[in-house]
Amino acid sequence: MTRFEVLILGNSSATPMYGRHPTAQIVNFNEQLFLIDCGEGTQMQLFRYGIRSNKISHVFISHLHGDHYLGLVGLLSSQHLMGRRADLHLYGPPPLKEILDLQFKHSDTQLRYRLIFHPTRTDGVDVLFETPALKISSFPLRHRIACTGFRFDEGKRAVTLNGDEAERLAIPMSYRKLLKRGIDYVDADGQVHRAIDLTFPAPPSRSYAYCSDTVMTDEYFGAIKGVDLLYHESTFLHDMVDRAKETFHTTSLEAAQVARTVQAKKLLLGHYSARYKDLQPLLDESRTVFTETFLSEEGKWFLV
Amino acid sequence: MTRFEVLILGNSSATPMYGRHPTAQIVNFNEQLFLIDCGEGTQMQLFRYGIRSNKISHVFISHLHGDHYLGLVGLLSSQHLMGRRADLHLYGPPPLKEILDLQFKHSDTQLRYRLIFHPTRTDGVDVLFETPALKISSFPLRHRIACTGFRFDEGKRAVTLNGDEAERLAIPMSYRKLLKRGIDYVDADGQVHRAIDLTFPAPPSRSYAYCSDTVMTDEYFGAIKGVDLLYHESTFLHDMVDRAKETFHTTSLEAAQVARTVQAKKLLLGHYSARYKDLQPLLDESRTVFTETFLSEEGKWFLV
Repeated sequence: MTRFEVLILGNSSATPMYGRHPTAQIVNFNEQLFLIDCGEGTQMQLFRYGIRSNKISHVFISHLHGDHYLGLVGLLSSQHLMGRRADLHLYGPPPLKEILDLQFKHSDTQLRYRLIFHPTRTDGVDVLFETPALKISSFPLRHRIACTGFRFDEGKRAVTLNGDEAERLAIPMSYRKLLKRGIDYVDADGQVHRAIDLTFPAPPSRSYAYCSDTVMTDEYFGAIKGVDLLYHESTFLHDMVDRAKETFHTTSLEAAQVARTVQAKKLLLGHYSARYKDLQPLLDESRTVFTETFLSEEGKWFLV
Repeated sequence: MTRFEVLILGNSSATPMYGRHPTAQIVNFNEQLFLIDCGEGTQMQLFRYGIRSNKISHVFISHLHGDHYLGLVGLLSSQHLMGRRADLHLYGPPPLKEILDLQFKHSDTQLRYRLIFHPTRTDGVDVLFETPALKISSFPLRHRIACTGFRFDEGKRAVTLNGDEAERLAIPMSYRKLLKRGIDYVDADGQVHRAIDLTFPAPPSRSYAYCSDTVMTDEYFGAIKGVDLLYHESTFLHDMVDRAKETFHTTSLEAAQVARTVQAKKLLLGHYSARYKDLQPLLDESRTVFTETFLSEEGKWFLV
């Protein structure tokens, strides 16, 4: 089965504390690495968790609050110094380009690899990346400044062969691939072996959605409908819902309500406020509404 | 005795590896905190080593290579979020202001404290800060882009009282302060007790100089002459002296030659290249020329 997992590199909101780091995640899809957000210290976190930064091909920045992008110039510069040659695609709010250019100008840096910048939009869902195996889209969130979430949708998955049955009927190897493509096999005696009888149906395609930072609003529910794994920020406990709304953030109870409403299969909390040293209450609160909730923990991989 | 110490927060050159962090140091002078350079992750390092960031009153940035300043926006933003009200003085190359302003603009941040920017100069020694107790100057280094070092000079130190002798002669408390100011004491019998006989001379004033990043050249030797503690970058071992010159850096052997030439009392190496996992060879090489060499280690305080 194609690998499809998320590694948490940072789970802290604005002010990093208690050894927690600002937001960053790696999505590994079939050994292709995608970086979502890049808070300060991301390059050190990648090193700590054994991720080879030069294998990252695409970077997605949700918005221009420092805790979501301040590690980017350092990461890009280190890639340059370490001899990267492969293209790097960067998706983020339009002013990000200006911010990078200004810093590279004053550090007199000419990157030795191609950095291809794709500005994100906040006027609707936008497909950023698409192959038969994977589609990545952005969608608007509602935060104090322009912000998007990202959704990863696996393409149509392959049917699998009923190997035991193929073996029993002594179907030649070269025909087994054809069976998986739906082509029936006719043996030397003229007997037809139907592809549908010799294969298992394709398992459903998997999907991951990333929502940080945002106040809870049904405007983005459509874009994250039915995902297998939903990462949703949960900066506060619900006793601080007023503060959450005021700062355009979400409570852990609200994150659970979102997960239930959009019929996500699993919910991952994160972007914890520095006021919570102990995160268990955030998890407990969310589980009162949505039992399949988990805390994002730095260094931990989550299956989509 | 007035506290005068340097805490190493980061000792790595451009690419942070092996748990080492990019350059940042705290100078504690009499419980006033000065930050020199602010590489990515500095705010987390401050937290790790128990330094209260809101006690930092002045920040000095040597130059605009990312490994010396990319932690600044994060630190300034966190100070803002944590309710800082005290002024913060920032010294650095002129374009630093533009870089900060652009990022604060796009994150829609209006700092709640006063950030007072002082552009540094590279045309000579410049006094940045001066009180009777402490003077801080910048001086030009020679790097690929505009870069300055910083020198901290303690003011004239106080003479100390010979307490035992004062006690023996039963000199009243209120006169002891006067003795330290050089005023003789005349007792009830008219006998003169000379201040000079009842005090120890003031110990020599201490000084610290910070040199990173630079190629070795005698142009800055005058500015760091006779310091008690010299921090000098030593990116490479001397077998890479050509590479050092090409990249405007220094070898550990050269750092030792500088220390010996300017008659520094102690030398602190740092800004180690990512190619050296083991730092002992850098120390050994330097000590062949200058025995009072030490490795800067993260989390370690060095007395000036």
